[in-house]
Amino acid sequence: MPESPIRKLVPFAEKAAAAGKEVIHLNIGQPDIATPEVALKAIRNLDRTVIEYSHSAGFESYRRGLAEYYKDNGIDVTYEDILVTNGGSEAIVFAMMTCFNPEDEVIVPEPFYANYNSFAMQAQVVLRPITTYLSEGYKLPPIEAFRELITPRTRGIIICNPGNPTGYLYTQEELETLKQIVLENDLFLFADEVYREFCYDGRTHYSIMNLDGLDDHAIILDSVSKRYSMCGSRVGALVSRNKTVMKTALKFAQARLSPPTLGQIASEAALQTPPSYFDNVKAEYVQRRDILVDGLNAIDGVTCPLPGGAFYAMAELPIDNAEKFCAWILEHFEYKGATVMMAPAEGFYASPGLGTQEVRLAYVLEIPKLKLAVEILEKALEAYPGRVENATASKAAHGA
Amino acid sequence: MPESPIRKLVPFAEKAAAAGKEVIHLNIGQPDIATPEVALKAIRNLDRTVIEYSHSAGFESYRRGLAEYYKDNGIDVTYEDILVTNGGSEAIVFAMMTCFNPEDEVIVPEPFYANYNSFAMQAQVVLRPITTYLSEGYKLPPIEAFRELITPRTRGIIICNPGNPTGYLYTQEELETLKQIVLENDLFLFADEVYREFCYDGRTHYSIMNLDGLDDHAIILDSVSKRYSMCGSRVGALVSRNKTVMKTALKFAQARLSPPTLGQIASEAALQTPPSYFDNVKAEYVQRRDILVDGLNAIDGVTCPLPGGAFYAMAELPIDNAEKFCAWILEHFEYKGATVMMAPAEGFYASPGLGTQEVRLAYVLEIPKLKLAVEILEKALEAYPGRVENATASKAAHGA
Repeated sequence: MPESPIRKLVPFAEKAAAAGKEVIHLNIGQPDIATPEVALKAIRNLDRTVIEYSHSAGFESYRRGLAEYYKDNGIDVTYEDILVTNGGSEAIVFAMMTCFNPEDEVIVPEPFYANYNSFAMQAQVVLRPITTYLSEGYKLPPIEAFRELITPRTRGIIICNPGNPTGYLYTQEELETLKQIVLENDLFLFADEVYREFCYDGRTHYSIMNLDGLDDHAIILDSVSKRYSMCGSRVGALVSRNKTVMKTALKFAQARLSPPTLGQIASEAALQTPPSYFDNVKAEYVQRRDILVDGLNAIDGVTCPLPGGAFYAMAELPIDNAEKFCAWILEHFEYKGATVMMAPAEGFYASPGLGTQEVRLAYVLEIPKLKLAVEILEKALEAYPGRVENATASKAAHGA
Repeated sequence: MPESPIRKLVPFAEKAAAAGKEVIHLNIGQPDIATPEVALKAIRNLDRTVIEYSHSAGFESYRRGLAEYYKDNGIDVTYEDILVTNGGSEAIVFAMMTCFNPEDEVIVPEPFYANYNSFAMQAQVVLRPITTYLSEGYKLPPIEAFRELITPRTRGIIICNPGNPTGYLYTQEELETLKQIVLENDLFLFADEVYREFCYDGRTHYSIMNLDGLDDHAIILDSVSKRYSMCGSRVGALVSRNKTVMKTALKFAQARLSPPTLGQIASEAALQTPPSYFDNVKAEYVQRRDILVDGLNAIDGVTCPLPGGAFYAMAELPIDNAEKFCAWILEHFEYKGATVMMAPAEGFYASPGLGTQEVRLAYVLEIPKLKLAVEILEKALEAYPGRVENATASKAAHGA
């Protein structure tokens, strides 16, 4: 596997910290939000004397609770449509191994979550990127672009909604387009919906499970990591009404015995999280997003589309190369004693040469930090020797 | 994936329970022993407000603690030789994906832990069984038998020591034989050592990490599941001094982000488990083992070799077919209101036709239950319509 561009930056960040600079981490998706008290309390009140396996598909009580959670979110499934996994990661691997054979092709809008590459490698599946553009806010390409990518080996489409790294929230119309392609070609449609709760500006999440006629095609990949800010519990889910898929996925689950018992206890308790928790978290994220995005767009030469969900923003910078810039800012730049760590976007694209002027910024830090990060970025772009006049790479590649 | 023979029995067990019979579960490896108090206490005293990811290789403090644990067990490794995994299962999958390519061959003594089949399938590795025999207590075959199995695609050997399902404890001499084969053919040697603590009759465990000259070849697959009776924590480890292996395995680990944080907290605390805990547990298992094994051998036509470790025993029964018998005893037999569920051994063999008269029994239940189980088995064998005069299948296959 190739080294990820973020990991290549780690030594630079370590050196910066060792040199006494404060490193503001805009590169990671680990929220700083507190885990709901109800989940922590369940762990502290643990009344077991043996930490036993759960059922391979997860505790039935948790799966029944999850089915209720989905119903409350407008997604009508039963507990038998749910397999609890070791985080969302395992849900993706199981889904790929269940639905695809080696060398099958899966279409994925790029930029996409870089770990899909590793999961595809494990399942020996070939990812076929369909490019979306910063200049268009990363909206779904027209249906013809999908049709051009279909080959006899195409077996699925995978989306992340709202998206990591783009924060893009798909419209119902876009999902209907995907449905058309899926039915035309008898494909599986995977939707990574782990950011479901984080949709802004009054918009709501539309799940692929609510597309008519897709019962045998639609698979949700889910996780409690971001929803309840408990990434470390490692509890995810694979959700589908396709009985054959669930039966095969269960066999993979049986081989690894059980998802984590303690994480499931926390997750089941977290189902009782009051709605006010999400109201507060969303209000906080919107404030952070606006400060970051407005701040970035106010910098000369920077373009940052407003993300409709999740807690990431992509920005195009007036630079020669994002990997170089992200290393440079850690190594050679500081302002008010601090610097920033960002994720160069190249690793989120499968097509060579794309994303070289883009970075991903996670707004999972408190507002004063975000404000300082914007200031640093502005000053750094003025000082950066590799500054270019206009960031037009993505537009040029797009032919716009 | 084929249905496992144990899982095929589940409907029979459910029907038996529904009919009011007590089902004594000798089929599973979930110990009834209490988790060490020190681990439960650490969970109850959780002082975090965010359940965050750990490092992808596990918390450094836990890995350093684990290195100390290994040193205390005579295995000299540093924390950098340790990758914390989602249970022992993930350690096996990562090790296979790291060390082998699709279609590579791996030799495994049979009978073996049936889930190795699923892990091999995930890694697209071909398992080549080398048969061991109940009549010989499942000791390692002579070196020539290994040499006959080596092909240009052979890349590794995997053992479980002490063994599931056999309870067999390898001698140092046997491990030296394996080392010879490994060095002759430049193979990897995997040892699943999750039952390390459970060695009986004054014998001690000898780890493959103590074989001279195997630093680049030896990989331990480990887990806290059985050691501390906390299967549900889902915390395992991949341990090797081979730096390239550790570097590649880390990339798989990074893709799935982190092993479970709560399970790691419990596991790190469990390192402080007092030696008296293991003394008590071992004394309990030895008592159980003796009652089960002596009881079985006292039954006419039954042979049960004395296991040197773990908490399983294999027994050969005077029956036509173990799968049929295990279903029959659940469906058609009861004694004192109870019946037993056992694991038919066929699923532990890769060679067709082996194990048809063998069952695996886990002695993870209290002594009165085990005594009753032996009584039930005795009466059932008298009543079973498919009884045969002598159980000689394994000996015949062996040419003895």
